Amino acid sequence: MTDTAGNPSAHVPGMPVVAVIGDGQLARMMQTEAIELGQSIRLLAGASGSSAAQVSADIFIGDYTNLDDLRRVAQGADVVTFDHEHVPTEHLLALIAEGINVQPRPEALVNAQDKLVMRKRLREIGAPVPPFAAIESVEDAGAFFDAVGGAVCIKARRGGYDGHGVWFPTDKDELSALVEKLLAAGTPLMAEKKVALVRELSAMVARSPSGEIVAWPVVESVQTNGICTEAVAPAPGISEALAQRSVELAQTIAKELEVTGVMAVELFEFADSAGQPDIAVNELAMRPHNTGHWTQDGCVTSQFEQHLRAVLDYPLGSVALNSQVTVMANVLGGQSDPELPMAKRMAGVWTRFPGAKIHLYGKTHRPGRKIGHINLSGDDVDMTRREAQLCADYLVHARWADGHVG
Amino acid sequence: MTDTAGNPSAHVPGMPVVAVIGDGQLARMMQTEAIELGQSIRLLAGASGSSAAQVSADIFIGDYTNLDDLRRVAQGADVVTFDHEHVPTEHLLALIAEGINVQPRPEALVNAQDKLVMRKRLREIGAPVPPFAAIESVEDAGAFFDAVGGAVCIKARRGGYDGHGVWFPTDKDELSALVEKLLAAGTPLMAEKKVALVRELSAMVARSPSGEIVAWPVVESVQTNGICTEAVAPAPGISEALAQRSVELAQTIAKELEVTGVMAVELFEFADSAGQPDIAVNELAMRPHNTGHWTQDGCVTSQFEQHLRAVLDYPLGSVALNSQVTVMANVLGGQSDPELPMAKRMAGVWTRFPGAKIHLYGKTHRPGRKIGHINLSGDDVDMTRREAQLCADYLVHARWADGHVG
Repeated sequence: MTDTAGNPSAHVPGMPVVAVIGDGQLARMMQTEAIELGQSIRLLAGASGSSAAQVSADIFIGDYTNLDDLRRVAQGADVVTFDHEHVPTEHLLALIAEGINVQPRPEALVNAQDKLVMRKRLREIGAPVPPFAAIESVEDAGAFFDAVGGAVCIKARRGGYDGHGVWFPTDKDELSALVEKLLAAGTPLMAEKKVALVRELSAMVARSPSGEIVAWPVVESVQTNGICTEAVAPAPGISEALAQRSVELAQTIAKELEVTGVMAVELFEFADSAGQPDIAVNELAMRPHNTGHWTQDGCVTSQFEQHLRAVLDYPLGSVALNSQVTVMANVLGGQSDPELPMAKRMAGVWTRFPGAKIHLYGKTHRPGRKIGHINLSGDDVDMTRREAQLCADYLVHARWADGHVG
Repeated sequence: MTDTAGNPSAHVPGMPVVAVIGDGQLARMMQTEAIELGQSIRLLAGASGSSAAQVSADIFIGDYTNLDDLRRVAQGADVVTFDHEHVPTEHLLALIAEGINVQPRPEALVNAQDKLVMRKRLREIGAPVPPFAAIESVEDAGAFFDAVGGAVCIKARRGGYDGHGVWFPTDKDELSALVEKLLAAGTPLMAEKKVALVRELSAMVARSPSGEIVAWPVVESVQTNGICTEAVAPAPGISEALAQRSVELAQTIAKELEVTGVMAVELFEFADSAGQPDIAVNELAMRPHNTGHWTQDGCVTSQFEQHLRAVLDYPLGSVALNSQVTVMANVLGGQSDPELPMAKRMAGVWTRFPGAKIHLYGKTHRPGRKIGHINLSGDDVDMTRREAQLCADYLVHARWADGHVG
């Protein structure tokens, strides 16, 4: 009953079918926009009750590392795209050889899959990245430690997300033990110089196969324990010059790497030797991204609609803002789930903040799990940030962090 | 494969399930908002490929005039609501007797089902309606014709929509023949005095079972051959006093009739005996309405989210505007369907107007059929109206009505 693969009743004749590999909240929110465009997505889902599978009528339950499963969901679709970066490159190349339209192309996508490949490529095109090195031995790690004065970050080249796959050893012994253990476990590694971070920014763009590129305003993002917890659009207090450099950098990367669909360029903002704000690339994501959720309510075209338009090679949409500032605050499962049901917590938020836009992912509680986000728009950055955080916090804890009662 | 009734994988534990009777575009657009709220709707659909059924994972294919079908879809749902007004009152009363939460209640809904009942009730509460009469014979019709100086409109009491079930006989012979034929066919009738229309307005509100009421700004709506083709929000050039009277009228009706969910009060604007603008109620709809589609892009809370919030007795959302003016233009199937596929027509619209929000219903072409709408926001009413109409027209005819080439 839950595997409805190839259900012809899920699509209207003559409209494109977008196959999405992955069943998380990004696929779910693509479905929202697909519906309004008169389409619907076809899903390769890992499980029938997953976030996106709950809301789709054409689901194939399968494994994205299995080429036959990928073939089945791709068959007859106008384009295949992703809600994560974990599909093996060789499978994508095989699909393309069979005539399947895959967007983004694996040659671009590999830069969001392999952190070392990405940094080498970005250095080639002149994009700023912190000093880095491939780590294939404890000796490599030790040499890099010395070269950067001990400010080392070790990263798994593949598979990391939300703070997973990133380590900050504090001395050389810890570094050696860590690298030895990881290499023994078969984890390909790289090292990067730790940046003296002022804050994190995110520059998001969309690019279509025809080459059109549209950029959203750069936003400030806040990470807590490696997980994005807040995005503020546009980035508060950023100079026009730095904002423009950030956007142009993302546009250049999209063009040079021939990215298609939406891409997030996560940036470090730091102070250069003269004390002036500067940027370097932290990570790339080639899909809708947590730092772009604000676009659902904060501007004319959301990242989810834009991603669909881009991979289908439609003209891209306006990103004019709906209000002066929009803040996205993530809702992460707390240590325990309050007795008050989520539906009542939503009511609590709306009673106090009728303009709060609640987006939930159809996920049950687990500590630290992303289960939704709040978008709140306003005129005043500080007040809007505070209020959005209060709302997100209330959805997690069923009480107001500022002591408000009601 | 298409009847997925009761699919537990379509809903996340702990979140409310909303059963929607009907499978049209209104149910489809409710699903869009339900997804973002972390819910999903359960559908009583007439056919598996219908507009809303395409995008839902919990569908029961059945008949809304069959009580057992209604029972099956209602079972376990937190609330039952509608995308049309055609469910028999006795069935709704039966469901309620069995403990089902039906919103709006049949006592309210009957006022959107029976045009005569509605007018009597509105007259009771002091709401302005044009002169009207029950028509149970040709003699009744003739008497009413005389009483209003021949300015007669005949309406089927039930089942009319989009200009169906409304007649404008031009003389008494035509009136008599019409009424005789309709009564012989068993159509319950009423007559109403034709209003010397200046324009049509629509005042939309939402009311929750707890009694909270939120009103959107009153809009101007344009009907072509009885079908809504355009809505302009807020209504251009309306005096503050008339706008306030319109909104207060809708609020009063919602309160007095104990409406729950979204209600559209379609209004006639006409000149009173002193030449001043005045209003009278034309029709009521107790569900999201064509004249409220602009809210999807023009304000913080769309009518579809608001309807879900209202029937679930959540606090209602902010209706603050995103821009100065938003125009909704309907896309109605033309006499023939152009060879250029709809996906290419969408591309054509977006090439010229990157801010056009296209909403399609997953429906195939049929002359005059509502297959979608465009929302366009801007600063200038006249320009935005012209552009929205151009976009809608292009989606129908695959050419620009103003001669633009590109």
